[in-house]
Amino acid sequence: MKKENITVVKIGGNIIENKTFLDEFLKDFSELKEKKVLIHGGGKTANNFAKKLGIETKMIEGRRVTTKKFIDIAIMTYGGLINKNIVSKLQQLNCNSIGLTGADANIIQSIKRPVKSIDYGYVGDIKKVNSYKLHNIIQIGLYPVFCALSFSRTYGLLNTNADTIASEVSKALTSNYNVKLIYCFEKNGVLKNIDDSNSVIKNITSKNYNELKSKNIINDGMIPKIDNCFEAIKNNVTKVIIGNHKILNNRTNIYTTISE
Amino acid sequence: MKKENITVVKIGGNIIENKTFLDEFLKDFSELKEKKVLIHGGGKTANNFAKKLGIETKMIEGRRVTTKKFIDIAIMTYGGLINKNIVSKLQQLNCNSIGLTGADANIIQSIKRPVKSIDYGYVGDIKKVNSYKLHNIIQIGLYPVFCALSFSRTYGLLNTNADTIASEVSKALTSNYNVKLIYCFEKNGVLKNIDDSNSVIKNITSKNYNELKSKNIINDGMIPKIDNCFEAIKNNVTKVIIGNHKILNNRTNIYTTISE
Repeated sequence: MKKENITVVKIGGNIIENKTFLDEFLKDFSELKEKKVLIHGGGKTANNFAKKLGIETKMIEGRRVTTKKFIDIAIMTYGGLINKNIVSKLQQLNCNSIGLTGADANIIQSIKRPVKSIDYGYVGDIKKVNSYKLHNIIQIGLYPVFCALSFSRTYGLLNTNADTIASEVSKALTSNYNVKLIYCFEKNGVLKNIDDSNSVIKNITSKNYNELKSKNIINDGMIPKIDNCFEAIKNNVTKVIIGNHKILNNRTNIYTTISE
Repeated sequence: MKKENITVVKIGGNIIENKTFLDEFLKDFSELKEKKVLIHGGGKTANNFAKKLGIETKMIEGRRVTTKKFIDIAIMTYGGLINKNIVSKLQQLNCNSIGLTGADANIIQSIKRPVKSIDYGYVGDIKKVNSYKLHNIIQIGLYPVFCALSFSRTYGLLNTNADTIASEVSKALTSNYNVKLIYCFEKNGVLKNIDDSNSVIKNITSKNYNELKSKNIINDGMIPKIDNCFEAIKNNVTKVIIGNHKILNNRTNIYTTISE
């Protein structure tokens, strides 16, 4: 049987925090005709609220630690304010969405990250995505909107990187769908030169990736994102793209494709 | 065709705010064998966060006005912190729940309360419950957990009384189920004498209700709750009960039944 198409789209903080960007993005997303799933981050909003509430950001060796107080803020902002406002805006655009954390319908199951040199606190590493229940929800005509929270049977809701959720959800969906995964952000793609928005790298393959890293063209935050892309592409996701949300309705043909 | 049974349970602030009560309640709820829906309030938690964030509570003629700032707090606390922690705890009890606002799957549709003498702000009066989509979600094996937020196409998420949501959701479910509605709180039922926990009124009927009101035995906050009960019972809900959560697994036979 021919599998249906589905598009998984991930948006980050720079889209969420900018009302104009977000509204533009959500319009494009709502107009996508095929089945679709949205995944969003929200760290900046959470940080702002933590600050307002006088909750300190705990860092160890430059890495954020998710304290009990911070996970509550994450549940409020990722799972509440951001997620539900996105769902509400999508409904206003006639896009029948449903906002989910990993605990809802037990879809994104994780374990608390084991303590080695650093205890990251309430952080979850994904163990399994329940593709069956996710498929059920999609099949009754709903568009899932996931925030960056996974669920551990022992510890409850845990902070999990939204890029990783996007990649793991995409992988799980391949059992029932042809999956396209798009990482949307404010830029046109992965740039060769950070100061030149026209220097988009059209293709990143496992071959040129090492070279791009060794030349320090790809570095820092972009590495885990691209690692997530490769994780998806190596696990039956049909197409993986990084770029601007204009991709969604073909208003641009400039973007970065990740292929094996 | 014989309709399936479903139980709709509403819990209020005094259960939500007390960890022991809440855990006990959720255990009882998770053990209910039939299909079920949970509805919760959360005003106290919202008020606490509003206070911490320095957001003033606006009151007109003794009635709370839901300002833009407060609706955001409600989305964070009702839709985020309280709702998702309940879902997470239920999942830990192997109860496959899904946390929803009125915007999710467009289930609880409302209009912003029209301004007459008072402008209540971001408050929604329920216009329609989408019984079809709610039925879909229940039929794929999920237990919906609703917070006190409805959805207006024009204004987005709106503050709506949880008792009313419970009554309207129950009414809507009657098209597909035999519905039992239970309002759970810390007391054993509606009391004749507020200081005597043994003075539970066993039956409130439309006949004795007026008398109980005129004698001031039923007053204040209890009146809208009981009005919601009558609204449900007059619209094909099979049984409506007010009492302690021990009712859920038959650990008590003392409670108040509302009947026509």
